[in-house]
Amino acid sequence: MKLLIRRKWTLSFLRAILAEFLGTAVFVFASLASTIIWNQIPLNIQMQKAHSSDNPVHISLTFGISVAVMSYCMGPISGAHLNPAVTSALLAGLRISPIKAVSYIFAQVLGAITASGFLYGLTPGQYRGNLGINSLSPGVTQLQAVGIEMAVTFQLVLCVFASSERKKDLANCIHLVVGLSVTLGHLVAIGYTGCSMNPARSLGPAVIISNYKNHWIFWMGPLAGGLLGTILYDFILAPRWKSFTD
Amino acid sequence: MKLLIRRKWTLSFLRAILAEFLGTAVFVFASLASTIIWNQIPLNIQMQKAHSSDNPVHISLTFGISVAVMSYCMGPISGAHLNPAVTSALLAGLRISPIKAVSYIFAQVLGAITASGFLYGLTPGQYRGNLGINSLSPGVTQLQAVGIEMAVTFQLVLCVFASSERKKDLANCIHLVVGLSVTLGHLVAIGYTGCSMNPARSLGPAVIISNYKNHWIFWMGPLAGGLLGTILYDFILAPRWKSFTD
Amino acid sequence: MKLLIRRKWTLSFLRAILAEFLGTAVFVFASLASTIIWNQIPLNIQMQKAHSSDNPVHISLTFGISVAVMSYCMGPISGAHLNPAVTSALLAGLRISPIKAVSYIFAQVLGAITASGFLYGLTPGQYRGNLGINSLSPGVTQLQAVGIEMAVTFQLVLCVFASSERKKDLANCIHLVVGLSVTLGHLVAIGYTGCSMNPARSLGPAVIISNYKNHWIFWMGPLAGGLLGTILYDFILAPRWKSFTD
Amino acid sequence: MKLLIRRKWTLSFLRAILAEFLGTAVFVFASLASTIIWNQIPLNIQMQKAHSSDNPVHISLTFGISVAVMSYCMGPISGAHLNPAVTSALLAGLRISPIKAVSYIFAQVLGAITASGFLYGLTPGQYRGNLGINSLSPGVTQLQAVGIEMAVTFQLVLCVFASSERKKDLANCIHLVVGLSVTLGHLVAIGYTGCSMNPARSLGPAVIISNYKNHWIFWMGPLAGGLLGTILYDFILAPRWKSFTD
Ligand SMILES: [Ca+2]
Ligand SMILES: [Ca+2]
Ligand SMILES: [Ca+2]
Ligand SMILES: [Ca+2]
Repeated sequence: MKLLIRRKWTLSFLRAILAEFLGTAVFVFASLASTIIWNQIPLNIQMQKAHSSDNPVHISLTFGISVAVMSYCMGPISGAHLNPAVTSALLAGLRISPIKAVSYIFAQVLGAITASGFLYGLTPGQYRGNLGINSLSPGVTQLQAVGIEMAVTFQLVLCVFASSERKKDLANCIHLVVGLSVTLGHLVAIGYTGCSMNPARSLGPAVIISNYKNHWIFWMGPLAGGLLGTILYDFILAPRWKSFTD
Repeated sequence: MKLLIRRKWTLSFLRAILAEFLGTAVFVFASLASTIIWNQIPLNIQMQKAHSSDNPVHISLTFGISVAVMSYCMGPISGAHLNPAVTSALLAGLRISPIKAVSYIFAQVLGAITASGFLYGLTPGQYRGNLGINSLSPGVTQLQAVGIEMAVTFQLVLCVFASSERKKDLANCIHLVVGLSVTLGHLVAIGYTGCSMNPARSLGPAVIISNYKNHWIFWMGPLAGGLLGTILYDFILAPRWKSFTD
Repeated sequence: MKLLIRRKWTLSFLRAILAEFLGTAVFVFASLASTIIWNQIPLNIQMQKAHSSDNPVHISLTFGISVAVMSYCMGPISGAHLNPAVTSALLAGLRISPIKAVSYIFAQVLGAITASGFLYGLTPGQYRGNLGINSLSPGVTQLQAVGIEMAVTFQLVLCVFASSERKKDLANCIHLVVGLSVTLGHLVAIGYTGCSMNPARSLGPAVIISNYKNHWIFWMGPLAGGLLGTILYDFILAPRWKSFTD
Repeated sequence: MKLLIRRKWTLSFLRAILAEFLGTAVFVFASLASTIIWNQIPLNIQMQKAHSSDNPVHISLTFGISVAVMSYCMGPISGAHLNPAVTSALLAGLRISPIKAVSYIFAQVLGAITASGFLYGLTPGQYRGNLGINSLSPGVTQLQAVGIEMAVTFQLVLCVFASSERKKDLANCIHLVVGLSVTLGHLVAIGYTGCSMNPARSLGPAVIISNYKNHWIFWMGPLAGGLLGTILYDFILAPRWKSFTD
């Protein structure tokens, strides 16, 4: 009996790890693909057959929709964090165990690197560019970049905690709202840093093209923003213990 | 016992004020950031690396999604007005107390100014521009600007009152519809005035860059449009007392 | 007693008429405004301050979102037809009375003309253009235009009938789907005819700028497409009487 | 009595076949129409009256919204597969019978060809172009094309299986998520192959303009990606029998 329970726990846990790996891989593959610029041809020829995608709306929609779709698919299996900053915020809010957090983050990072490798192989060399790596726009300081990454991850983590209050049967709409929050972050931050909000998404292409310039910003900013969101929302705005002493 | 109730009321009220401050700050920060024009470089170079966001669809989506996301997060805590025109309309419809209305508007205005200050600090000087301030396009008269701002705020306030009729358990979709209404206003009015619909959103960047030209329009228009919406929807189209004498 | 019932019916009916007038007016005002082209200035200057909206995605989103938002607001009051082709299809499907159909269409047409007049007054002369009137693109024949208008209205009316099968408590999502259907029609047909799908939307600007060229197409196409949708969906695919003899 | 049941089954089945034919036809007609490039005129003239639609966001939204809308309409009648790769995946997951699968695929293919023929007739010759046929962008190898088509169909089929777990009364949101998944595939793959994800969508215009170059890719890729999705999601991540031995 004990063995059966243990085995069930193990299988469910392995499925959750696989779901984080697969969900992050699909989301990172799709999102990085949307940053590829196809029409590197003169403007007048472009009018005939343009497949440009160097458009912040295009990229922002792709990041948000891929997160919404994978959250929808993986939500019932793993909770669909798909992001070390989200997993860390949930750990800081005492909602998941350290062992789960470490396993999820490992799966997310592995998924992102695998996806970046696949995208590298599936894209013709002349279009690969920097494979959608995060970098600072000219004039943006490291401090400004950390601040912007904190801001956009802050609002994502507010959404994640707000969702945990909602009733189960509205689970579909929750995934849509989280996707909108990711799109929002990109509409805001693409101009500053290309928008990370997610260290795994930044690490994937950095590993494949071996470029770690300013890479620490895309761990520091999202993790700090997520922690700030945890403190403000889960401890101050909507504390779970408020029904007791409040 | 009485003390406990009082303390609970006070804490809930303070949380609501904080939620209005924070929700308006995130929404204004994100939305103004979307108006920044990054690619002030020759057109042929842009094709290599373009981060343009001077695009009405980009800006309209950012305003609407940021309102949807913050409404989703702050809705259960404060009702998520995030806008002095919405708070005033709800006051005119006798749905909130004057003390609540004044506190909320104060928090919204403070949130918008704080957000504008943060955005100023986080954005390189050469890109700040007018920080997304509202202004009249060439050829648009003050009367036309007031009319357009009335029209777009009118439909937002219709949505707010229509939402108050809906069942609680559909709360998620309500936030999406309010976000769509804000996006709609911007798709319509950006060409005329940059689209305010929200005096706090207009005051924030005006204070930071000290430019109050035509600023009265962005209080007068939204407040008058909201009042018109209250009269038409809450008093004529769907009066709450219709079950009695009607 | 009888008098009370009669008065209630009359008041509800008058409110429904007002809701059709107001909903159509807001939708037509917003949608036509989205067709205005603001940046009639050289391309290099545009990069500094561009408010262009001559973009099919911008226009399609505006039409769809304004219908979604007004359907959400007016749905509980009048059913939110907002379109003579929808009202006619519901009449053909024996779902509303002829007197209601005539009253609704009258209110819709009046709303559209009023909205077009307001937009004319609120827009500087140099930007008014043709006020978003429907017209055939060069090379498109009248027969092709009727066919395209039939096709896009056909799918809208399928949505309307499919919605009537859904449970009441999902009413919010129904409005979103109808809005998506209107956006879809515009993404498809803007290139052919500017996309009508709605005779009231076409008549409004035609009256204000006195241009009725090919105007019959924008009644014939949507009405025929709506009738085809009624026959296929309400009589063949999902007949209401199928539980009896089927 | 037996006869009555048989007749009912037959009528329901015929309605389902008709729904697959009609739903696929509307979706393919609308989506191919969105690929037409209307503004083949010099750039400076475009500013006056531009109806360009050669924009990946425009095309991606049209594919996704048309699938969402037709899924919403046809879902209660046929399940709204609208895609041989979806039908094949459901067959591989032992969720539909072979006879149903073959009938559905036949209806989908016939609907796509019919729609492509109608679009050919309704579009002026100078704009028809290649009628939105799928083709490989310069530099993309056949292997890369198969890989990309597998990837985007894989995530669509994950969504389809994830939806089958959801409660019936959230059916509306399910259709929206499937539409988002189709939009996602196009945002990713338009640059590589024009994005098929659906062999019927590829076959339709290929038949009408008699161009079958690389056509096998648009059957092989989606069918293989769908099978991979079935194995991973329906057999490993969320197996239906897990409540028994797991
Ligand atoms: Ca193209
Ligand atoms: Ca770029
Ligand atoms: Ca601008
Ligand atoms: Ca135009």
